[in-house]
Amino acid sequence: MQVSFACTEQTLRSRTSEDRLCPNRPSGGQNVGNGGQTKQRTPPLATKYPNQALPLITNMLRESTGKATGMKYRNLGKSGLRVSCFGLGTWVTFGSQITDEMAENLMTIAYEHGVNLFDTAEVYAAGRAEKTLGNILKKKEWRRSSYVVTTKIYWGGQAETERGLSRKHIIEGLRGSLERLQLEYVDIVFANRMDANSPMEEIVRAMTFVINQGMAMYWGTSRWSAMEIMVCVGSMTWSPLACGLITGKYADSIPEKSRASFKGYHWLKEKAGSDEGRKQHSKVKELHPIAERLNCTVTQLAIAWCLRSEGVSSVLLGVSNCDQLMENLSSIQVLAQLTPQIISEIDQILGNKPNIKKDSRA
Amino acid sequence: MQVSFACTEQTLRSRTSEDRLCPNRPSGGQNVGNGGQTKQRTPPLATKYPNQALPLITNMLRESTGKATGMKYRNLGKSGLRVSCFGLGTWVTFGSQITDEMAENLMTIAYEHGVNLFDTAEVYAAGRAEKTLGNILKKKEWRRSSYVVTTKIYWGGQAETERGLSRKHIIEGLRGSLERLQLEYVDIVFANRMDANSPMEEIVRAMTFVINQGMAMYWGTSRWSAMEIMVCVGSMTWSPLACGLITGKYADSIPEKSRASFKGYHWLKEKAGSDEGRKQHSKVKELHPIAERLNCTVTQLAIAWCLRSEGVSSVLLGVSNCDQLMENLSSIQVLAQLTPQIISEIDQILGNKPNIKKDSRA
Amino acid sequence: MQVSFACTEQTLRSRTSEDRLCPNRPSGGQNVGNGGQTKQRTPPLATKYPNQALPLITNMLRESTGKATGMKYRNLGKSGLRVSCFGLGTWVTFGSQITDEMAENLMTIAYEHGVNLFDTAEVYAAGRAEKTLGNILKKKEWRRSSYVVTTKIYWGGQAETERGLSRKHIIEGLRGSLERLQLEYVDIVFANRMDANSPMEEIVRAMTFVINQGMAMYWGTSRWSAMEIMVCVGSMTWSPLACGLITGKYADSIPEKSRASFKGYHWLKEKAGSDEGRKQHSKVKELHPIAERLNCTVTQLAIAWCLRSEGVSSVLLGVSNCDQLMENLSSIQVLAQLTPQIISEIDQILGNKPNIKKDSRA
Amino acid sequence: MQVSFACTEQTLRSRTSEDRLCPNRPSGGQNVGNGGQTKQRTPPLATKYPNQALPLITNMLRESTGKATGMKYRNLGKSGLRVSCFGLGTWVTFGSQITDEMAENLMTIAYEHGVNLFDTAEVYAAGRAEKTLGNILKKKEWRRSSYVVTTKIYWGGQAETERGLSRKHIIEGLRGSLERLQLEYVDIVFANRMDANSPMEEIVRAMTFVINQGMAMYWGTSRWSAMEIMVCVGSMTWSPLACGLITGKYADSIPEKSRASFKGYHWLKEKAGSDEGRKQHSKVKELHPIAERLNCTVTQLAIAWCLRSEGVSSVLLGVSNCDQLMENLSSIQVLAQLTPQIISEIDQILGNKPNIKKDSRA
Repeated sequence: MQVSFACTEQTLRSRTSEDRLCPNRPSGGQNVGNGGQTKQRTPPLATKYPNQALPLITNMLRESTGKATGMKYRNLGKSGLRVSCFGLGTWVTFGSQITDEMAENLMTIAYEHGVNLFDTAEVYAAGRAEKTLGNILKKKEWRRSSYVVTTKIYWGGQAETERGLSRKHIIEGLRGSLERLQLEYVDIVFANRMDANSPMEEIVRAMTFVINQGMAMYWGTSRWSAMEIMVCVGSMTWSPLACGLITGKYADSIPEKSRASFKGYHWLKEKAGSDEGRKQHSKVKELHPIAERLNCTVTQLAIAWCLRSEGVSSVLLGVSNCDQLMENLSSIQVLAQLTPQIISEIDQILGNKPNIKKDSRA
Repeated sequence: MQVSFACTEQTLRSRTSEDRLCPNRPSGGQNVGNGGQTKQRTPPLATKYPNQALPLITNMLRESTGKATGMKYRNLGKSGLRVSCFGLGTWVTFGSQITDEMAENLMTIAYEHGVNLFDTAEVYAAGRAEKTLGNILKKKEWRRSSYVVTTKIYWGGQAETERGLSRKHIIEGLRGSLERLQLEYVDIVFANRMDANSPMEEIVRAMTFVINQGMAMYWGTSRWSAMEIMVCVGSMTWSPLACGLITGKYADSIPEKSRASFKGYHWLKEKAGSDEGRKQHSKVKELHPIAERLNCTVTQLAIAWCLRSEGVSSVLLGVSNCDQLMENLSSIQVLAQLTPQIISEIDQILGNKPNIKKDSRA
Repeated sequence: MQVSFACTEQTLRSRTSEDRLCPNRPSGGQNVGNGGQTKQRTPPLATKYPNQALPLITNMLRESTGKATGMKYRNLGKSGLRVSCFGLGTWVTFGSQITDEMAENLMTIAYEHGVNLFDTAEVYAAGRAEKTLGNILKKKEWRRSSYVVTTKIYWGGQAETERGLSRKHIIEGLRGSLERLQLEYVDIVFANRMDANSPMEEIVRAMTFVINQGMAMYWGTSRWSAMEIMVCVGSMTWSPLACGLITGKYADSIPEKSRASFKGYHWLKEKAGSDEGRKQHSKVKELHPIAERLNCTVTQLAIAWCLRSEGVSSVLLGVSNCDQLMENLSSIQVLAQLTPQIISEIDQILGNKPNIKKDSRA
Repeated sequence: MQVSFACTEQTLRSRTSEDRLCPNRPSGGQNVGNGGQTKQRTPPLATKYPNQALPLITNMLRESTGKATGMKYRNLGKSGLRVSCFGLGTWVTFGSQITDEMAENLMTIAYEHGVNLFDTAEVYAAGRAEKTLGNILKKKEWRRSSYVVTTKIYWGGQAETERGLSRKHIIEGLRGSLERLQLEYVDIVFANRMDANSPMEEIVRAMTFVINQGMAMYWGTSRWSAMEIMVCVGSMTWSPLACGLITGKYADSIPEKSRASFKGYHWLKEKAGSDEGRKQHSKVKELHPIAERLNCTVTQLAIAWCLRSEGVSSVLLGVSNCDQLMENLSSIQVLAQLTPQIISEIDQILGNKPNIKKDSRA
């Protein structure tokens, strides 16, 4: 049985609907088959739209390290864009329970620790995430060329024309995002490829338009449904802790004020209580001794595990206070401790390795 | 004998000149041959101008229903653009006999009932339709992303350069429309393909220019002559009542103040008085019992019939008062009543079905 | 021997250098070989630069007549652009000897007689022609869509970078023209293809850039040298009177204040005095009886002859006073008098017809 | 053994890494093999990106001479852009030891002697070179069309995203350059092709974007590393004196305040003291008698030698005072003195000619 660490919910779901698997991110680094899907999907795009701006294609290149911060930088997908191996997500971070001051503190800490990637979406906190991000960027006056802002087109309003991936919505939706962000352009705009109502050609042409207009530097696409696009976009890994599932938070019951108790998080609640959720939770428990040996938390071990995956350019952190952020950022030091032996131990626990089957026969 | 319901005048005309048939809209839904024409016409365009913005291609996709209004939404042609199954035409609606206040009332009612499509043209009421539409949109302050505005390039002035589909006229004509509409862009601009003086390549390039400049989201083309383009554009069905012909208004004489008595409506007058007009009128009379059974008017039956046609994305309503508009809008409830049996009865009356021939032998 | 009427100097020159012949304009309408050159030249352009804005290709379409003015309108080349069969050139018209008031009078008369084409160039009167044209257009406030302005890139200054057809000069040169003209765009910009220093690809790309930027609606190219481009551009025939040669002005001596006595008109002076010039002059004398019979001047006969040539969209008039302009404009009435018999007579005099050879044997 | 004159350091380096040779500039004019490399490299670009703006390709065309100044003008590469055979580099010229007044004097002298090419880069003097150049151009008010400004994208700041050739850095870097230069566009922007982190497709698309946006007229690329791009860009030869190596400045020791003693010039210092440096220095000594015979300095002989190379459009002068500039500019008169016999003598000294091998056997 395969269990991935970072994207638990996708893996679980993929058993019933195979084609929803994250195609660009090998779960735990071993799932080569998905990489093969990527190769199959990309050439038709390039062949069919030879003069259109094509989306980012995932493939990590050389890593460098910031002198002052120790932050790692990698190319985002196959592009030349260099992003920090941690990005700051704004889904949780700038949610309704976070004050503007806290959000600014989180961004400042992240930026000063070398984080150069800030991820948002028109849908996060009904546009408030974009507004908060834009206000902070304006106040801090960091050079525009020193950071990367990404957003996602999903839905922007109640009207029928404000949904899906029609040319009209892509262009108007991104314009709305730019206004809220008070930016002339985002660095990357992502689109959800699951809108069966919009032909791929229309999406590619609309994205090329926004690129040519200078409203975005790059665009990306994904094959995931509404919920999934919030969870993992492009080659960025969101929520390495699978929204707390891994840390065992929800093992017995759903705590008040935790994400699983929020409106719209039914899927999280259901998963926590499901048979598979419980099986997975018991596997996670086996990781605790390893974390203790490495003198880190299971959370940090999970993030470090994500960071070492070949297809992962950046792990998006969704934190709600500065302690969490610092804990997550320091996972970078756990990365160096992931020796082949430790990796082998974790693989055996998760059951991800192909040769695990032999072991389980024994 | 084939008689269509919605586009009576095109069908009559098509007998003498086959290639003037609306290619994208099966008359009454059964005329598959026209759909075939569409398929033949489109590929050369895509092949010849691979990097140009291509026009909308008609093919309806999934239908959704507005929660508050019950309005149906469909994709316009093969695009991802979602339009209400009713659009408000401004040819009649904003004509010279309608005050600005009445026009505003009509638009407000339509919008609040879920209509998101407003159709105009530089030629309607000599530009006044566009000005009125623009003034109302400005006053109402609806979000630009919540509605769709379409216009048509036909002629814009007395000068020789202000006619036809030269690059100069397409660009300058659309600029004029945008000024009158007080909009930065229209959602769709339609061009009449019958201008033999302008090569197709020039039209495609000019349309691509206006798309790339952000003056329009989409463009469409049609094969119809001057009069025809006003009657049915793209996959939108105009004047489902064939300007009153179907309702029997002109069966005996032309009433004063009715459209057929207006200047420029000679064709309507001629048609009403023609042999074929009279034949058709007698067929329409046979529909009255069905309308009575469904507890609706023949007008509503006609509109519902249009709505169920596969190739029809939106039916453009041309009304001159609020009662007419409400009557037309409520046709949507008749749609559900069009059971296979009712449809079969109407087909037999209209003589549209292929198997009608067998019946007529009997 | 072939003698053309309108472009005497090109024809004379073409005997020594065949490839300088106007390729798009059959001299007198019979020179099919040149048309063949056009066909050979155009396809490679379209094939090599499939996504670039291609220049106008010459081929006249349907002619219409202005109701109020009787002016004839034709498509310029193969484009959809409708131009009056007379254009007002500004080389002579807005030269140094014409006051601004006179220039305005000439333009007003022309426009009111249905002329919608005004031709200028950065080089005419060292930019003064463009400035005068721009000032008059601004003052008169004619609708921008009601007329066509053409200019030509030749040279714009003393610097090495201000000559030729480099991308830099095409873009900067046209910007300069637009500033002088006080226009946002010209309708057509012509480039001289004889600049061996600039590769054709660079010219095509630069022209596509100015089209995409909205600085011009169309572009055209020609194969002629510096002097030639002033004489005949695209499918527009300049100076049908060959600068006075045909009218016999210079038959015996060069009058003071005539063009041939101006600086830079040495070629005209030389031509007038050459053997071929004299031969041609004697032929022109034979046309006088025909002109008398048609109750027109030889000048008017010459212009009418140009107008009936198949490849000619518009004849550019270079006049220096209102009488000349009115005389030229009224040539349109001579056109109807050019019966097959008259045409045959003129052909025999000019020796243009292939079957003339047989006649000359007789 | 091959020794080139102008690009000494490249040639030396090329022995250990062949593919770093200047591909577009035959060293001394004889190295045809490199020209062959150019041909191999260019077609794939044109084939792979048929609709993208392609970089300049080197191949010199006709030379003309300025009337007032005697300056020679050549096409830059295969483009139609005419540049003076001398360009003013701003690396040394506008370095930290030069006052703004001196920089202005140098530019004024150069411009008045017919120099129309000013070369800078975001990296020169940490942006100060661009600012100084921009200030002087603004103050002097020369027509924008009368000169050519080139810049290079290398790095623009401390952040990870401000390095390399990602789309983000190309666009943002050039925007920064334009701000510092106070220009709407540069004439040419060069990019270093050695950034293995950015795919060639991304670079080509980004360059096409800046061209289409009007931020640059042309773009060029090079295959050289960080240091090399400062030394020779495109078909422009930088530092014909190999930073003083040829003049024998560093033969015995490194003088204070000379370039080799500056921070970041270690390579120059190392080269001067190396075995190969000394060998080369002894060859240069043999050139002194020839320079004396031609009544010029070895510096002038070196520059003239560069000017006569077929692939060289312009030699970039890096001077620190007016005397040096005048000395360098007057090398143009030495060019005419390079008779076949003199050339043969120099070839024998430098050992560049293929037939030298036979000589050395003798």
